[in-house]
Amino acid sequence: MFKKILIANRGEIAVRIIRACREMGISTVAVYSEIDRDALHVKLADESVCIGPYKSKDSYLNIQNILSACVLTGAEAIHPGFGFLSENSKFAKMCKECNIKFIGPDYKAIELMGNKARAREVMKDANVPVVPGFEGEIVSEEQGLEIAKEIGFPVMIKAAAGGGGKGIRIAYNTEEFLNGYSTARSEAKVNFGDDTIYIEKFIENPKHIEFQILSDEHGNVIHLFERDCSVQRRNQKVMEEAPSSFLSEEVRSNMGEVAKRAAKAVNYANAGTIEFLVDKNKEFYFMEMNTRIQVEHPITEMITGIDLIKEQIKIANGDKLDIIQEDLRIKGHAIECRINAEDPSNDFRPCPGLIEDVNFPGGFGVRLDSAIYAGYKIPHCYDSMIGKLIVHGSTRDEAIMKMQRALDEFVVDGIVTNIDLHFKILNSKEFKKGDYDTSFLKDKLVNK
Amino acid sequence: MFKKILIANRGEIAVRIIRACREMGISTVAVYSEIDRDALHVKLADESVCIGPYKSKDSYLNIQNILSACVLTGAEAIHPGFGFLSENSKFAKMCKECNIKFIGPDYKAIELMGNKARAREVMKDANVPVVPGFEGEIVSEEQGLEIAKEIGFPVMIKAAAGGGGKGIRIAYNTEEFLNGYSTARSEAKVNFGDDTIYIEKFIENPKHIEFQILSDEHGNVIHLFERDCSVQRRNQKVMEEAPSSFLSEEVRSNMGEVAKRAAKAVNYANAGTIEFLVDKNKEFYFMEMNTRIQVEHPITEMITGIDLIKEQIKIANGDKLDIIQEDLRIKGHAIECRINAEDPSNDFRPCPGLIEDVNFPGGFGVRLDSAIYAGYKIPHCYDSMIGKLIVHGSTRDEAIMKMQRALDEFVVDGIVTNIDLHFKILNSKEFKKGDYDTSFLKDKLVNK
Repeated sequence: MFKKILIANRGEIAVRIIRACREMGISTVAVYSEIDRDALHVKLADESVCIGPYKSKDSYLNIQNILSACVLTGAEAIHPGFGFLSENSKFAKMCKECNIKFIGPDYKAIELMGNKARAREVMKDANVPVVPGFEGEIVSEEQGLEIAKEIGFPVMIKAAAGGGGKGIRIAYNTEEFLNGYSTARSEAKVNFGDDTIYIEKFIENPKHIEFQILSDEHGNVIHLFERDCSVQRRNQKVMEEAPSSFLSEEVRSNMGEVAKRAAKAVNYANAGTIEFLVDKNKEFYFMEMNTRIQVEHPITEMITGIDLIKEQIKIANGDKLDIIQEDLRIKGHAIECRINAEDPSNDFRPCPGLIEDVNFPGGFGVRLDSAIYAGYKIPHCYDSMIGKLIVHGSTRDEAIMKMQRALDEFVVDGIVTNIDLHFKILNSKEFKKGDYDTSFLKDKLVNK
Repeated sequence: MFKKILIANRGEIAVRIIRACREMGISTVAVYSEIDRDALHVKLADESVCIGPYKSKDSYLNIQNILSACVLTGAEAIHPGFGFLSENSKFAKMCKECNIKFIGPDYKAIELMGNKARAREVMKDANVPVVPGFEGEIVSEEQGLEIAKEIGFPVMIKAAAGGGGKGIRIAYNTEEFLNGYSTARSEAKVNFGDDTIYIEKFIENPKHIEFQILSDEHGNVIHLFERDCSVQRRNQKVMEEAPSSFLSEEVRSNMGEVAKRAAKAVNYANAGTIEFLVDKNKEFYFMEMNTRIQVEHPITEMITGIDLIKEQIKIANGDKLDIIQEDLRIKGHAIECRINAEDPSNDFRPCPGLIEDVNFPGGFGVRLDSAIYAGYKIPHCYDSMIGKLIVHGSTRDEAIMKMQRALDEFVVDGIVTNIDLHFKILNSKEFKKGDYDTSFLKDKLVNK
């Protein structure tokens, strides 16, 4: 087993990884930017190396400096956490060339999954359902309509060269299609100088449901059930739960097998996540694969008892998975609230600053993964997430009650946080009933 | 279900009970002595009532004031926690007379189990093994020797009227018995004015292993496996673990059935603990029954997933147990460290005072049940236990590593604590191997 691991990250995920290493008897090296000198991950690691000024590009994204820190301290492996360099195939490749083990999949899998068009092709070939769409060029209105009917309404008509929501039209019937097709084309022409049109199935108010997979370098793949991440604001997850009360046992099992197939299709080895869109009829479509540990991994740990960071390290070490699919059972229910230093009532404006006092919730089934302490100054230049509060209960109802009492005990003085928004979500009838999709937060709570 | 519960206790157990109530949607009433005005349990409860001056006898043991607070606030039930009035049968009886539900067993069971001689008789009748001993009066040396041989060496010869260790002799053979018998008699005569002698089996360096039971008012009894509480100083538990690596599956199952028989023998209804002494040959003997929740109950919660405080409340409400023995499985391994404001290097002298700063450990499988916060002044007049750090791992080794890393993160500035002692215990080869009994802490660590 590795004797020393460098953690190329900051904040709570760096702390999370240090904790796992310490419990495995592995020494840790923290890296930090100049502004992070007093950060908790630096205090908790065995060694630490400053890798540059506060700007991410000069420090946490500075491959040269990180690799130098690794060589300097004699670390044998790098855990990239999430964000920053975690899905940078070039970095993973350079680690390999430097004979440093990158704790994640091979760079080829990262590269492949990072290219959305290629990923879609590979998944189609592997019989993984993708959002139905026409991949060729559409030459006429008539052809477009035919394709739309083949895919089935509603469809999304979008500029192939598009972005930023421009040149997009939704059509629920022939009439809307004909109108939408011509406006989308002219908008595309004006905005992108290219009126090529692409048509795909429009998934109305989908659920965002993702499957955790673990696979080793010996071809073994398991899935650790799903996480429902449909509570989102601007495509950012806010609160996650596992399992999803939306899935039947049959759909769960089916999606789990598909997720494993997706991982196998790219010779994946390490922890990964297959994200799906699920429509009202429980039809599911591959969205993307995240080739790293996810922010919301703790809820999977809580319902399975498996430490995903330790598994990542063991897999990177070449170990065989010692868990088999048949032994896995969902135990109870877990919810995670992302605690952000931001103001939901002011367009989610980030609110960094000095934390004057804290009170952490505790007790049975309550877990806090955070990097804050009283007297810590949250820098202005990184992500606003300062911690994750996770609860586990024997039922979903118990988990909801537990999260409310834990949030109630959670005090972060000196800055604005999104804790009140979590109360609103938990108290909404939609969330209580499990009846929510990706439109819920925006439509029902924030804009109200 | 009850709408409002009064918690007749303080410190972390009061906080623990408030948390369970809140998660069940039950309002809480805290009671506090004048010195506890700023205590965490007062801050967390929905209502609070001052019940008297700092001395326990004037406040936390003041039955009249507590019952008045209950009537005043309209609480329907009282949870006594542990210590204070929790095993006071008179208090339990008065609650009943006032039509307030005492969250614990009927006062008759408390009374019976509080009388060690009667408890021993009831257990013998119920075929629960007790430490072999002769209950009649011993009239001669010859008769004593005969009894000693019948019981089997080693035996303990003690003054029936004794106490404080005086008039006690251990004999491993006939010669030692004859010497011990006469010295014990003369010491008994001198010290207690009564030379009546009692002989019982001497259990050498036993393990202290206890079984958690839950029973309802409808005659259902289950056991939730054991806790190994052999790490003790002066009969005070310091660190506990569940399960005990000392027990085979067969002995565990056997002891569990005996524990259930013990509970049934006294028509027990609520949470209770049967404490056993276990000798080197895994012979076990009933020591006593604790008719309340134990300090160390969280480790049982961690390995079973069952919230014992919620179960207590549901049982007191007249609910039927919805757990059956056959469904219970031990999941992983849990350890609890009692965090005390005391100085182990100075004869465990209590060290109350102002907590200037705290850093709480967190992460996967780490639970903190405490009542402290930065700025809290620990009063001089109560128990020195300020919190309990509990960890859960998939194996005993993982739990030990996890406890070490969690203790390492735990900072309590301003006072002296026993955290270093816990490191010593965890690092000792005896504890690592699971090879320790009630003599371990005194012989191997503290007096070293």
